[in-house]
Amino acid sequence: MPPPVTLAFRNLLTVALGEGRGVDPQDLAPEGALARAHRGALATLETRRGNGELGFLRLPDDQDLLAQVKVACTRERGFPIRDLVVVGIGGSSLGPRALLEAVTPAALTPEAPVRVHFLENADPDTLTRLLATVSLPHTLFNIVSKSGTTAETLAQFLILKARIEEAVGADAAPRHFLFTTDPEQGPLRALSRDWGVDTLPVPQDVGGRFSVLSPVGLFPAGMAGLDLDALLDGARAMAKESLVPDLQSNPAGLLAALLHHWDVRLGAPIHVLMPYADRLRGLALWFQQLWAESLGKEGRGPTPLASLGAVDQHSLLQLFMEGPKDKVILFLQVMDPAAALVIPPPTADGAFRDPAFRRLGGHTLGHLLETERQATAEALRAAGRPSATLRIPQVDASALGGLFLLFEVATVLAGAHYGVNPLDQPGVEAGKILTRGRLEGDPQVTFLPEEGF
Amino acid sequence: MPPPVTLAFRNLLTVALGEGRGVDPQDLAPEGALARAHRGALATLETRRGNGELGFLRLPDDQDLLAQVKVACTRERGFPIRDLVVVGIGGSSLGPRALLEAVTPAALTPEAPVRVHFLENADPDTLTRLLATVSLPHTLFNIVSKSGTTAETLAQFLILKARIEEAVGADAAPRHFLFTTDPEQGPLRALSRDWGVDTLPVPQDVGGRFSVLSPVGLFPAGMAGLDLDALLDGARAMAKESLVPDLQSNPAGLLAALLHHWDVRLGAPIHVLMPYADRLRGLALWFQQLWAESLGKEGRGPTPLASLGAVDQHSLLQLFMEGPKDKVILFLQVMDPAAALVIPPPTADGAFRDPAFRRLGGHTLGHLLETERQATAEALRAAGRPSATLRIPQVDASALGGLFLLFEVATVLAGAHYGVNPLDQPGVEAGKILTRGRLEGDPQVTFLPEEGF
Repeated sequence: MPPPVTLAFRNLLTVALGEGRGVDPQDLAPEGALARAHRGALATLETRRGNGELGFLRLPDDQDLLAQVKVACTRERGFPIRDLVVVGIGGSSLGPRALLEAVTPAALTPEAPVRVHFLENADPDTLTRLLATVSLPHTLFNIVSKSGTTAETLAQFLILKARIEEAVGADAAPRHFLFTTDPEQGPLRALSRDWGVDTLPVPQDVGGRFSVLSPVGLFPAGMAGLDLDALLDGARAMAKESLVPDLQSNPAGLLAALLHHWDVRLGAPIHVLMPYADRLRGLALWFQQLWAESLGKEGRGPTPLASLGAVDQHSLLQLFMEGPKDKVILFLQVMDPAAALVIPPPTADGAFRDPAFRRLGGHTLGHLLETERQATAEALRAAGRPSATLRIPQVDASALGGLFLLFEVATVLAGAHYGVNPLDQPGVEAGKILTRGRLEGDPQVTFLPEEGF
Repeated sequence: MPPPVTLAFRNLLTVALGEGRGVDPQDLAPEGALARAHRGALATLETRRGNGELGFLRLPDDQDLLAQVKVACTRERGFPIRDLVVVGIGGSSLGPRALLEAVTPAALTPEAPVRVHFLENADPDTLTRLLATVSLPHTLFNIVSKSGTTAETLAQFLILKARIEEAVGADAAPRHFLFTTDPEQGPLRALSRDWGVDTLPVPQDVGGRFSVLSPVGLFPAGMAGLDLDALLDGARAMAKESLVPDLQSNPAGLLAALLHHWDVRLGAPIHVLMPYADRLRGLALWFQQLWAESLGKEGRGPTPLASLGAVDQHSLLQLFMEGPKDKVILFLQVMDPAAALVIPPPTADGAFRDPAFRRLGGHTLGHLLETERQATAEALRAAGRPSATLRIPQVDASALGGLFLLFEVATVLAGAHYGVNPLDQPGVEAGKILTRGRLEGDPQVTFLPEEGF
């Protein structure tokens, strides 16, 4: 089968942008600087894999995990499930959300047989509104936290547990929960044993932001009717393609090497991911976490910016075109959108004669969208501003699986290029410690005022 | 009444961040550099106002426009309106969307008496899904384009017009549309006359991204039941406060001067707006357009990044804490969230004894959220990273009016600091010209390929 994802990157090169502005194609030749750096990054990746740090790479082949998810999706719980609420934040939400928005958006609408909701933030307004929307006796809550300690998620769980106990009684309450958490450790795992709650594991070698193809993403996707096998097939094909040493046939390797080079050598530390499809907005937010949290450390790291075409042509494009030359735009193109809507040619009389109407008639809406994307790429190029385009045939489970794997591998390779550990997140600890201290009333934890001077 | 919006900015100053890192408080004294720059920026603003360029400043007082909107909201159209679809992109959508998400989010749910939808992108999947959701005989389409030429919006209009004519017949079709456009010019204005469509004006001196308090925002907000008078009252109060020459009592002036200084003098060109309330996510996207399109030109301009707390503590915070020191975080705090949800103290037995559960019990969810915000600000400060906090009492029409005005004035003042015209967007023309040429089949318009080299 053809590769599910391809990368067109000529607009990152000097041949498109002009001498001295861009990557020299020579650098991509087998003995060029980027090709050598790529092989070095692959070696670092293989070392990490050998150390058992890259569990996400074997998820597409984990038939046992997949079987567990399928069982959980069909388990009899003593009530018909009308609403599934995924309670999680960060890696516990961004992946499943991106997946469902892209491939099974109908599951997020009120008409779905099982409606899926995401509860992320510790925002009382949001939780209140959710509680007014669902019927608790027909709701399953999927509490997702790898560590089992996430404050926002546990706080919401405690509130939801009390509401469910009110609604269905204490004995039936555990059946309304499913914990997705560490297979052995943590408060949620311990509680699942004490309280008799169904669980799914997040393998210990799979980090939160790399967990979308683990039960974290598979369970909600399965409940929404997604073809999990196609998802994993797409991921498996891309896992293979992402690990080849030949840089020019490796889209993940190209992405990592080219974006890193544009950051540290060519002064473009802002990496914009701009899908031209509303259904891929969630994917851009998922990428934002993956790229930022993996690479932003030791004073280094690019800033990812989730964008959306053509919408942001009317928002951010002015800055991309004429602001500082500090950005690379990575377009994401769907080659064959599902729906084909033809723009009717307007009647030839009166105000409809205006070219603003006439030039649109007869084209499909998808053609307009893709023409805008191409025109934007060309306008950026002509202004000496770099871009590249990731292409997928269509928005389906297989393509999504491929995209997830591609970005995950690209992130680990980019970590090697940047010389940082892409798998940790030491910078978020300080705030967590302060939060815990304040909640526990620790008198030693005091904050300086934010006002006055 | 107390000012609806305040700014706590100590964490931008040397007194919080340490000598040599931050703004010297002396610079804010009446004869300090920033105070003088502020008075210069105000003078530039007053010149623009004198030239009739800043129509947005008088919108809070335009009783005539408000009356027109109120009439349009109650006009009899010969059918009961079940769905209102706002068709617009960029400034025609970001403002109304921010407003409705914040203050009347219920209008965006299926249960609302009048459900409001936004149709922005020229995405065939999105339009197809919308058409499957609404009942055309009970739907009003608000087509919003100041110029009347926006390709995405006109394309969708042509498709919707054909569907409506099919559904209700050609004679009744015009009653299902309301155009919000230039009072005199453009294809939509001309068509409104030919075709007999109800209209509302976007005043000529009000730019698209400054139009939220014009009929662009007022009409959908009025249809959703928002208190338009309270909205404009909040804006009017802030318009006054935003124009005072004393820098330290002017939150808009402080925002403009401090963020500009942090960009050009202290190396932080990325300005993150991070509300701690889900309902304000749309506001951050609106700000993103305002800041980017107004200031990003002539090789200058900061990059705005729309974020959300506490969600992005689990996504972008690692980068903010340990990545390059190129960011200022602007928190947006709601002092008194509408809903008060108490986290129940867990039972004292078994796994619930874990401190991860125990420390949460008895606090409200809102307290957890605000504690996280404070902890994040403090962790950033301790790491030498700048932040500031905008505070609103609660999320209501008055506070939103104040926020819109504050950011709009801050943008015009920042334009003066950066030395650019904050009211134009010349950089988006090139792509539009290419798009038009391709749609019209102009053989002179060819694009270089994006692949190969």
